[in-house]
Amino acid sequence: MALIPLVPSIVTVFYVPVSADETSLVAKYWLYLSILVSIMGYILCASLIEVVAEYNLKAGLSGKDLGKKGTKHESVDVPEALGLVPGIVFLLCTIISQLIFAKNDQEMVIYNSALFSICFMVFLGFTDDVLDLKWRYKLILPTIASLPLLSSYSGSTAMFLPQGILRSALWDMETNALTALGRMVNHVAIVDTEAQGSIVELSWLFLVFMGLIAVFCTNSINIMAGINGLEAGQSYVIACSILFFKLYEMAFCCKDSGISGFAGVTDHQIFTTLIVLPFIGTTLALLQHNWYPAKIFVGDTFCYFAGMTFAVLGIHGHFSKTLLLLFLPQVYNFFISIPQVLRIVPCPRHRLPRVDPQTQLMHCSAFPCKKNEFTWIKLSSDAEECPNFTIINTILRIFGPMKEKQLTIVILTIQVLTSVVAFLLRYVVFEIPVR
Amino acid sequence: MALIPLVPSIVTVFYVPVSADETSLVAKYWLYLSILVSIMGYILCASLIEVVAEYNLKAGLSGKDLGKKGTKHESVDVPEALGLVPGIVFLLCTIISQLIFAKNDQEMVIYNSALFSICFMVFLGFTDDVLDLKWRYKLILPTIASLPLLSSYSGSTAMFLPQGILRSALWDMETNALTALGRMVNHVAIVDTEAQGSIVELSWLFLVFMGLIAVFCTNSINIMAGINGLEAGQSYVIACSILFFKLYEMAFCCKDSGISGFAGVTDHQIFTTLIVLPFIGTTLALLQHNWYPAKIFVGDTFCYFAGMTFAVLGIHGHFSKTLLLLFLPQVYNFFISIPQVLRIVPCPRHRLPRVDPQTQLMHCSAFPCKKNEFTWIKLSSDAEECPNFTIINTILRIFGPMKEKQLTIVILTIQVLTSVVAFLLRYVVFEIPVR
Repeated sequence: MALIPLVPSIVTVFYVPVSADETSLVAKYWLYLSILVSIMGYILCASLIEVVAEYNLKAGLSGKDLGKKGTKHESVDVPEALGLVPGIVFLLCTIISQLIFAKNDQEMVIYNSALFSICFMVFLGFTDDVLDLKWRYKLILPTIASLPLLSSYSGSTAMFLPQGILRSALWDMETNALTALGRMVNHVAIVDTEAQGSIVELSWLFLVFMGLIAVFCTNSINIMAGINGLEAGQSYVIACSILFFKLYEMAFCCKDSGISGFAGVTDHQIFTTLIVLPFIGTTLALLQHNWYPAKIFVGDTFCYFAGMTFAVLGIHGHFSKTLLLLFLPQVYNFFISIPQVLRIVPCPRHRLPRVDPQTQLMHCSAFPCKKNEFTWIKLSSDAEECPNFTIINTILRIFGPMKEKQLTIVILTIQVLTSVVAFLLRYVVFEIPVR
Repeated sequence: MALIPLVPSIVTVFYVPVSADETSLVAKYWLYLSILVSIMGYILCASLIEVVAEYNLKAGLSGKDLGKKGTKHESVDVPEALGLVPGIVFLLCTIISQLIFAKNDQEMVIYNSALFSICFMVFLGFTDDVLDLKWRYKLILPTIASLPLLSSYSGSTAMFLPQGILRSALWDMETNALTALGRMVNHVAIVDTEAQGSIVELSWLFLVFMGLIAVFCTNSINIMAGINGLEAGQSYVIACSILFFKLYEMAFCCKDSGISGFAGVTDHQIFTTLIVLPFIGTTLALLQHNWYPAKIFVGDTFCYFAGMTFAVLGIHGHFSKTLLLLFLPQVYNFFISIPQVLRIVPCPRHRLPRVDPQTQLMHCSAFPCKKNEFTWIKLSSDAEECPNFTIINTILRIFGPMKEKQLTIVILTIQVLTSVVAFLLRYVVFEIPVR
């Protein structure tokens, strides 16, 4: 079942005919090489996880599975922070890719800054798992870790606005001039009047935007967590989608339109696939161990590792806005969580769903409140508790209580559907040109 | 007292007149800026150490001070792995330096590969402190972490042989031809016959040599440890020496001989000072907390961090052979330790000196052996124990038992004397040209 998200990519790689020119043959060669490295990464990761799990248990890095209340697994110590293994194995795989692939200083800069930012986040995540850091560090450190990434960004800082509402908000087609909003935007960025508002040059604002992406990615996966297989599962689905998006671009809509079959592949497309492939390999190994009933927990180490890898992919792969489309469930969860995270609304220590020890069904978790508070969101207006603001609770309220494994599958299915929607928006509805 | 190793550098920076050309003014500007960043690093590090020490204590990262047996400090839990703080603060300082200094892709590559390798080692060291890794990982991982460093090395791979024994071993001045040894060396490297054997082009062998430097530096500081202030102290002295060496080169013997006063400064000289300055700042803060009686332990985290930083400096600063001269006490300790590390000779769990609870004096530590074994090294030939093979024991046998603080000062004095000898060898006896 775990291979389902990979099917479109496999079809693209093995069934799209390659045109005979050199670029496409070289591209295919990189691709096969990287697939080989990733398979080795998967094997190494799968064999190391159990070894390191023993180390972690011995060092006291373990926790109870709160979703197993009332079962015989309730009091078992589950080793924690196993994201350490895919993190380190991924770094090894990427060092190998770099040695094979990076040909000049510019590519070396991109690889090294990517490696450094990801390594720093894996390190920070592991430190967090061991020391249980305060929230302020979790916001400051990723910001700083993303600085080398941003300073080595060499792509365009302009944003392309597709035909439609967004563009007409900035450009009045009838008078052929900027709208009032367009003039306001023009104070902080440059709206290209020759391109009739379809290109907005954001310059340093784009760098700030990308810095925020890094902080957002690392934290949003972390707060959408808590049930077996969810952190690794969502990251796996997103990574598979990114892989397919890039392969689709490489196969069908290269720079010079009209050419297909991996001709005209750009360096940053290859970079993206070479980074995302070992991530998929190592995450898959982790997911198999973390799948219900979890033998290990992934920890903040994995969430930070995955988040920063996506940020790196979005920034150096030049698709930070498409990345946000893939993150829609995380964006939803992030924004509805804000009132609780900022303590505007009471926030309990854990916001995981509550498990019924008799039926093993998961129910909405809640925080205590007074009878006349939060009546707009509560299950019944005179209840003395209110469901926590999380995507898991939203799903449980729509579909009703369900078992843990079923819940994970429902959420991951939503993640897959999000990717389908993102694909249609990006490549069919708006047809944004590939840069 | 801690400022003594810095005195020569301070004198050079503030009393050598700057020539008025642009290069030297710019060099001075970088230098002052970097000094400012390093002072900020020192302050940040000093204020964070106590905060993080609390975190580490709470997480169970602590140990007993074996050198305090028989005192009231014997049973106190001392927080461990505090090398974490200078490690992270150093990375922050270097990111800032990079943003200010790195102007082109080539410099970005050097900075980013340095940052990645150091970050990976700090991470590995912390993992080791938490999980207590096996020896094989400690040899494999630094090797891999140094790969990006080596692949971004852009300097010469030739070795300059100074006049004297070494050169005449390869080149026969009378017949003006290679010696037998010279011809043997010529099979794996290229001895420059036009330069009469004074230059040996090592090509890939030089890269292997640098990879070994990385593994050696990270492990040699780690095994010369165990008494309060020693790890941080030796690293501090070595770093101050490197700083002075580079400042001396910049001030007095620039590329185009004859010019002085910071004219003709090269990029890798600036790189070295910009990396070593924040290292000195953060290590000084750590040393003050780790000085006798230690309030914290530095852990493997610090040893690995320091070792990799020195390797980076040696490789990208183009002075890997001079670096080995500065490491003479570590080289000595490393080589005499080999029989015990490889278990050819019995090796107890700890090889720290043994403290006499009454007098508080430190004595040689030993491992048990039979009466007729190791008679060549034992204190008396019929003793049933033999001193461990460490530099600390060598010193205790020469100078007799002494108190812990005194022992640290003696070792650090030896380290300072080593630097003086290295300076004389490098700049006075051999006068190797600065590249």
